[in-house]
Amino acid sequence: MDHYAKPLTRLINELGRLPGIGGKTAQRLAFHILSLPDDEARSIADAIVNAKMKMKYCSVCGNLTDTDPCSICRDSKREQDIICVVENPRDVLAIERVKEYRGLYHVLHGAISPMEGIGPDDINLRSLMIRLQQHDIKEIILATNPNIEGEATAMYITKLVKPTGIKVSRIAHGIPVGGDLEYADEETLLKALEGRRSY
Amino acid sequence: MDHYAKPLTRLINELGRLPGIGGKTAQRLAFHILSLPDDEARSIADAIVNAKMKMKYCSVCGNLTDTDPCSICRDSKREQDIICVVENPRDVLAIERVKEYRGLYHVLHGAISPMEGIGPDDINLRSLMIRLQQHDIKEIILATNPNIEGEATAMYITKLVKPTGIKVSRIAHGIPVGGDLEYADEETLLKALEGRRSY
Repeated sequence: MDHYAKPLTRLINELGRLPGIGGKTAQRLAFHILSLPDDEARSIADAIVNAKMKMKYCSVCGNLTDTDPCSICRDSKREQDIICVVENPRDVLAIERVKEYRGLYHVLHGAISPMEGIGPDDINLRSLMIRLQQHDIKEIILATNPNIEGEATAMYITKLVKPTGIKVSRIAHGIPVGGDLEYADEETLLKALEGRRSY
Repeated sequence: MDHYAKPLTRLINELGRLPGIGGKTAQRLAFHILSLPDDEARSIADAIVNAKMKMKYCSVCGNLTDTDPCSICRDSKREQDIICVVENPRDVLAIERVKEYRGLYHVLHGAISPMEGIGPDDINLRSLMIRLQQHDIKEIILATNPNIEGEATAMYITKLVKPTGIKVSRIAHGIPVGGDLEYADEETLLKALEGRRSY
């Protein structure tokens, strides 16, 4: 990089710190940005600053939003007595894409992970318990990820919520649609068998 | 994307227009940027604006630089009578990394491509001819890419330069070091045979 100027080196370094962007990709992106017309390059920078400035976490559910409460929490047509608990805002997006679920959400911003020193107080859990006390919630669906941390979090929340009489459910694990039994790992296959439903 | 706010959607769209960044990656990057501390997110935006503002093309060789002429053109220790002709600034970077070549460069910013309507006047070729007239150049090395456009460009420049008596050479094509004969395409193998050197 000796013969490349500081502004370019800095741009490559900044881009290279993004997740999944290695050195070569960062370089390719930097050169592409420099080849853009001024206004297009500026537009990317503006979009970053603008999004960072305007997007906040919803004070009710913790989802990313530019209004508070977020559009889902404000939508009175959605079922107000069911809450789907997810680890992060991307999971909300994923479930919304299915266009089936019409209840509310609660975003934990993480999962309990003793290995990484993340306990129940480090995720957005307290506000969920307050929501459960203050509103008439019939069911919470635990949609944390099917890994150790997600399962631990689901178990922990179940223990907290069960005594209140609110129904607690967990999303199903099994063979993905279009997947192949042959290539499924044993853990998934086990979950698929355990979760079998009668015809 | 219905439930995502405009600032986020705009950021995802801007990122998704970068080369090699698909919709999913753009989303992942956008969420990552939103999860960064304010100053880190702003630093990315600043790096883009700063690089775009400060980086120009060298008026001599066409390379990307923040000074004019660029550091290579100004370096009197480099051989002043040999010019390596490349398609874009990334190629300069690639050759500099080898730390072997000590001459000058000329960046064409493209290659002749009749298919895409790019002719000799659309690339940075005229200034190369002027350099050849004004300075005592002994050799030009054609390091355009080994594809149809790169070859066509190399042929075109050869025809222009040959009559002046300046030595014209082309970088070698062949099996990449560490490559496997078995998997080499026929065109590469042909070039490797043609370009064989006696021990």
